[in-house]
Amino acid sequence: MIVLLGGTGYMGRQFVATLRERGLPFVAPSRAETDYTRFDSLLEFLRRTKPDFLINAAGYTGKPNVDACEQHRADTLQGNTLFPVTVAHACATLGIPWGHISSGCIFSGAKVETDGRVRVERDLTQAALQSLLQKNPGLFHGFNEEDEPNFSFRRPPCSFYSGTKALGEESVKGVGQNYIWRLRIPFDQLDDPRNYLSKLQNYPKVYDNANSLSHRADFVAACLDLWHRRAPFGIYNVTNPGFVTSRQVIEMIQAILKPRRSFEFWANDEEFYRVAAKTPRSNCIMDVSKLLAAGISMRPVEEALEESLHQWKPLP
Amino acid sequence: MIVLLGGTGYMGRQFVATLRERGLPFVAPSRAETDYTRFDSLLEFLRRTKPDFLINAAGYTGKPNVDACEQHRADTLQGNTLFPVTVAHACATLGIPWGHISSGCIFSGAKVETDGRVRVERDLTQAALQSLLQKNPGLFHGFNEEDEPNFSFRRPPCSFYSGTKALGEESVKGVGQNYIWRLRIPFDQLDDPRNYLSKLQNYPKVYDNANSLSHRADFVAACLDLWHRRAPFGIYNVTNPGFVTSRQVIEMIQAILKPRRSFEFWANDEEFYRVAAKTPRSNCIMDVSKLLAAGISMRPVEEALEESLHQWKPLP
Repeated sequence: MIVLLGGTGYMGRQFVATLRERGLPFVAPSRAETDYTRFDSLLEFLRRTKPDFLINAAGYTGKPNVDACEQHRADTLQGNTLFPVTVAHACATLGIPWGHISSGCIFSGAKVETDGRVRVERDLTQAALQSLLQKNPGLFHGFNEEDEPNFSFRRPPCSFYSGTKALGEESVKGVGQNYIWRLRIPFDQLDDPRNYLSKLQNYPKVYDNANSLSHRADFVAACLDLWHRRAPFGIYNVTNPGFVTSRQVIEMIQAILKPRRSFEFWANDEEFYRVAAKTPRSNCIMDVSKLLAAGISMRPVEEALEESLHQWKPLP
Repeated sequence: MIVLLGGTGYMGRQFVATLRERGLPFVAPSRAETDYTRFDSLLEFLRRTKPDFLINAAGYTGKPNVDACEQHRADTLQGNTLFPVTVAHACATLGIPWGHISSGCIFSGAKVETDGRVRVERDLTQAALQSLLQKNPGLFHGFNEEDEPNFSFRRPPCSFYSGTKALGEESVKGVGQNYIWRLRIPFDQLDDPRNYLSKLQNYPKVYDNANSLSHRADFVAACLDLWHRRAPFGIYNVTNPGFVTSRQVIEMIQAILKPRRSFEFWANDEEFYRVAAKTPRSNCIMDVSKLLAAGISMRPVEEALEESLHQWKPLP
């Protein structure tokens, strides 16, 4: 039996759906019945329910966006650092293996190959991105699980949100037996304020950058498959292979959904950060070789995007 | 037997001295032999040593001062929030009572009585302080253990250090059985970079404000006495009763130590924060009624200051 924490959130709801589809028995306690953020309540709950595996899909992302985390620092730390630590300690005490949804947003930029040498470009501005992409998109490489996060409290500047996610990883890694699943900008066919395809359609102006993305159901399937296959515990980047620019995704939206509106882009980074954003944004490319080498299949990001758009279900 | 964590720090060394004086058996593991910041190592260590009581005297204060914590956010969180949480979880798992050194710096200002009404003055500038003190110093009241911290991530602005200390308290309070001992600006007769009397003598200019203070050995004696008397677990302000202004302490230094140098004060808050400080400072008055009501005797702050200055031992 599986225990799912944070089952009502955007990712938690997908875990509920996939666990049901697969016929895997699980319980997803509500905080009203069990305050699992308290160590002693969680420990008592786990002693009683004796799960084979636990999934932490809870986290604090900020509403309407990551800027809100700058103002709600206690809640951001509680949700993304202290709560995972509490889960890690309870599971380590009882010997329960578990998985934690982390985030690729603890990285910024990509590894870029120029003149045969690979270097990290931490701050890929819209302008730099265009120039590099025109040369050769194949020269962009993602961050892997051996790379140290470069957008974190230890490698400032970073957003407060990213800082707490990186510290969460650092604090649970190797404490007992766990998977750290790195999600990156979730999307699928269901219109939702958390869905990247919804966000792009609703922004007054779009900020162009290159990112790896995670199809929501693909992500959850991969996480469960890692446990099902008893892959070694540790960190896994769980994104669809490849990367896309916001501009490319907008072009797909225009081609498939044929929206009536037109899309504008911020003129440059200066304008975006002056007008639309308070805290630095992570944009990054992830390497998923480790996930694929563990025998998990993930379709390319373009394929997952196209399918989501072809099956698009707008909010009523 | 007592386990002491952080035994090499400024407060930890005083715990070592007082425990020895009192003939109380203790072990103070070094991080080189036992990495007690890791939950599983700590748990194993405590299972093996089976202490009756544990003292957490570890923390991250920033060098040379609290401004450094703004740049070292991961270490500040690790030392002041995550580590106490780790101790709380390990002690709760094994049923070990313990005590944690917290700080009064999660408060700012004082409760000031004017026209028969008490209100919180959060930002006591030098100028406001002078004007209020001239009226009647007896109208200043301290914060008690029922008051919510007002200089914390939940009540910004605050320093990053204070934010992590307040979140540390919040995260360990009521998890198992523990004392939260609030220290406030330690001092004694031994010249030391952490000693308030040394700091005042070494600042190029002094920032005048009103504070409660903790004599180092008085603080440690009170903490141990609370446990010795089996006082109820919970939060205790552990400062010497009363408060002093920096200007008053400078006058005592001049009268007793007769230093050759003269002392200057910052002209006003604006100058202090522009030139000398990066992050807001907590200055506050604490109420110690709860400690005294628990039967712990603490001499008035003026008496402890005078004795320390009369026995002053400058660094060679």
